[in-house]
Amino acid sequence: MTTSTAIRRLNAADPDFARHLDHLLSWESVSDDAVNQRVLEIIKAVRERGDAALVEFTQRFDGVQASSIDDLILNRERLELALTRITTAQREALETAARRVRSYHEKQKQDSWTYTEADGTVLGQKVTPLDRAGLYVPGGKASYPSSVLMNAIPAKVAGVTEVVMVVPTPRGEINELVLAAACIAGVDRVFTIGGAQAVAALAYGTESVPQVDKVVGPGNIYVATAKRHVFGQVGIDMIAGPSEILVVCDGQTDPDWIAMDLFSQAEHDEDAQAILVSPDAEFLDRVAASIDKLLPTMDRAEIIQTSINGRGALIHVRDMQQAIEVANRIAPEHLELSVADPQAWLPQVRHAGAIFMGRHTSEALGDYCAGPNHVLPTSGTARFSSPLGVYDFQKRSSIIFCSEQGASELGRTASVLARGESLSAHARSAEYRILGDHTPVDKEGN
Amino acid sequence: MTTSTAIRRLNAADPDFARHLDHLLSWESVSDDAVNQRVLEIIKAVRERGDAALVEFTQRFDGVQASSIDDLILNRERLELALTRITTAQREALETAARRVRSYHEKQKQDSWTYTEADGTVLGQKVTPLDRAGLYVPGGKASYPSSVLMNAIPAKVAGVTEVVMVVPTPRGEINELVLAAACIAGVDRVFTIGGAQAVAALAYGTESVPQVDKVVGPGNIYVATAKRHVFGQVGIDMIAGPSEILVVCDGQTDPDWIAMDLFSQAEHDEDAQAILVSPDAEFLDRVAASIDKLLPTMDRAEIIQTSINGRGALIHVRDMQQAIEVANRIAPEHLELSVADPQAWLPQVRHAGAIFMGRHTSEALGDYCAGPNHVLPTSGTARFSSPLGVYDFQKRSSIIFCSEQGASELGRTASVLARGESLSAHARSAEYRILGDHTPVDKEGN
Repeated sequence: MTTSTAIRRLNAADPDFARHLDHLLSWESVSDDAVNQRVLEIIKAVRERGDAALVEFTQRFDGVQASSIDDLILNRERLELALTRITTAQREALETAARRVRSYHEKQKQDSWTYTEADGTVLGQKVTPLDRAGLYVPGGKASYPSSVLMNAIPAKVAGVTEVVMVVPTPRGEINELVLAAACIAGVDRVFTIGGAQAVAALAYGTESVPQVDKVVGPGNIYVATAKRHVFGQVGIDMIAGPSEILVVCDGQTDPDWIAMDLFSQAEHDEDAQAILVSPDAEFLDRVAASIDKLLPTMDRAEIIQTSINGRGALIHVRDMQQAIEVANRIAPEHLELSVADPQAWLPQVRHAGAIFMGRHTSEALGDYCAGPNHVLPTSGTARFSSPLGVYDFQKRSSIIFCSEQGASELGRTASVLARGESLSAHARSAEYRILGDHTPVDKEGN
Repeated sequence: MTTSTAIRRLNAADPDFARHLDHLLSWESVSDDAVNQRVLEIIKAVRERGDAALVEFTQRFDGVQASSIDDLILNRERLELALTRITTAQREALETAARRVRSYHEKQKQDSWTYTEADGTVLGQKVTPLDRAGLYVPGGKASYPSSVLMNAIPAKVAGVTEVVMVVPTPRGEINELVLAAACIAGVDRVFTIGGAQAVAALAYGTESVPQVDKVVGPGNIYVATAKRHVFGQVGIDMIAGPSEILVVCDGQTDPDWIAMDLFSQAEHDEDAQAILVSPDAEFLDRVAASIDKLLPTMDRAEIIQTSINGRGALIHVRDMQQAIEVANRIAPEHLELSVADPQAWLPQVRHAGAIFMGRHTSEALGDYCAGPNHVLPTSGTARFSSPLGVYDFQKRSSIIFCSEQGASELGRTASVLARGESLSAHARSAEYRILGDHTPVDKEGN
């Protein structure tokens, strides 16, 4: 194979820079009508025929010889068996990663709180875990044990009673590392089903698959489309776009390191996006040279080449200040601040899924074992969303206890506002609680 | 008008109770193909033609005589004018409510945190507000000033730089209370547009309407469908179903109070759901009698009657324990614990949007001015989601700074896991950071 890169070069001083950048970032995942139609049919079938539909679809789409749903269930014992089928180094690495991920996520736990006002009225917020979470794990080449840790551990830390995992096994292929990760993460039940049918089963429940409260985890277009359709019936996490990295470098990091950091994103798939921003034009040339030098040595050279040539870019900026502005415009999933004093720039970073600070903090460390989650907002959604976390598996209930005096006072205010909205049952319900006066305060709201 | 109720009676001892309850709760909001098609066309037109499309749609759908987008903009001065056009009592009530809502929501603010490990590695979470939020406010009869407070104040407390409100003015009708509430809540800009076109404008931006990061607020089926379609481009809040209340009463509250509390939900619309659960069968009869007695006196008697007869229920349970089980099964938007010692039952309540405790805490107090938000998860989604809050206008970025020593240690673990996933660029990127050894730890992961 001949590999060569022709990575796009942009200059922030170019009057057309904003337009070029928009074009570079543009990405829209479209579920076409055919996909939507098939997904809706699959969901309908699973709702109507439950386990029988699951068995049929799994035979048809995954080429699995299952005679009943029992053939698609893996119990805890099977997960424990997987632990013995991986190497000691792998087991230790999974355990180290799990321990660090757990320890970081423990800090995200939110507690209930209340406060009492002078008249005895108590207000607060009660925080509780979801009862059940469903974790989708892709089969085949995109089946990552690290994703099992990153999705299941926050749920368990939140206190979710039962974590149910689904993972397809195309042609019966089981990934022992994925099962070992599930065992270590504390997954309670595993079904070897996938696709839209697995999402439907988790959302609506079948005779064997328990209905969950939220479905998380990555998947192909059928899985993403199914998640979009069941949203509301159950909670879902973000629908992820292709993975991206933005490296901001002052020009003093080894260019080979930076090239490899870009590759680590590009190797995910052809649509992945790897961008480097630097105020040092000569450094950009050196990274381009490293890219050309290292590319032929990579296992996934073709994927990397397509990604780098199609969606990658080296962006020259005036200074570090402008580099950070570009980063905020992009709102990247992963932001590497490969600079001498990353702490100095951190306050100005407003939008990023995860921020990797300093030359030694490669994104790959965060992907596997640093502790923070690797499920991060893509495609600029870091403008409004967050890494997957314990907070995604907890929810809040408002608490309101009004003392007699408090209710009486609030009743007057509520009455005026309710009548202003022509909601007189609201007004009268509030007025009943006004002490010693059960007639409306002022029917006209004057 | 003749009003009469025939509210459904259920008994938890009935062997078919679970099925009857499922049937009672079943609700599915369906955007049919025609609605989807129209919404997609509207979104496309707004993306392509911006302001011109907004003016056209507003003329056509809202019957507004606008010659340009300038006619659809209300500035801060216009909002301040509204403050002078409402009564003093109304202004004071809005200000009291705003002050209490602000004070409660201040307690929801989340702060950034970090911690440092023994080897100098720093991990943490940076919390930042959204840059811009868009607030949809319905026009016409469902245009509620209280909703403006409840949606805008959490955004402002979170530190959102700009809150942009859209509110249609059908046939030019402006609701001064809504504008006054916007003024008090600190809304920065108002456009008098609505429908799918307003949602599209907020999501994608036009020449005049700024692109926002999240769209919140209730709306009709076109608005809800548009929000579903722009989800991913921007954040959205939950897509709300009809409002519901579940009252759990020990039988000792004035039955007129309970009937009116049920009405306060039922008066919202015909699909609203009001349910009372009590272990006291005779009390259920007394509330039924209060319903019959009070219904003819209500301004919205017809709506209440349709709601109560169609979706309401009086449920007899064995004891308070079973009442709480029913509440958890329903996961109601609003839960009133109209009992002697609500605190005793609170620990067992797992799923509810807001919990109103004690006989004096009517839901209406929380709807307007107690402090907690009135935008709450409906249709059982309290199983996995929360009241609207400050946290909906903040997002998190993970922070990872690895010391040289820390990166070196983590590099070994990451390398093993990356090679187990056949992601060798990840592995090599991590291995570069292993001190004094730039060759792979163990290519086979053994």
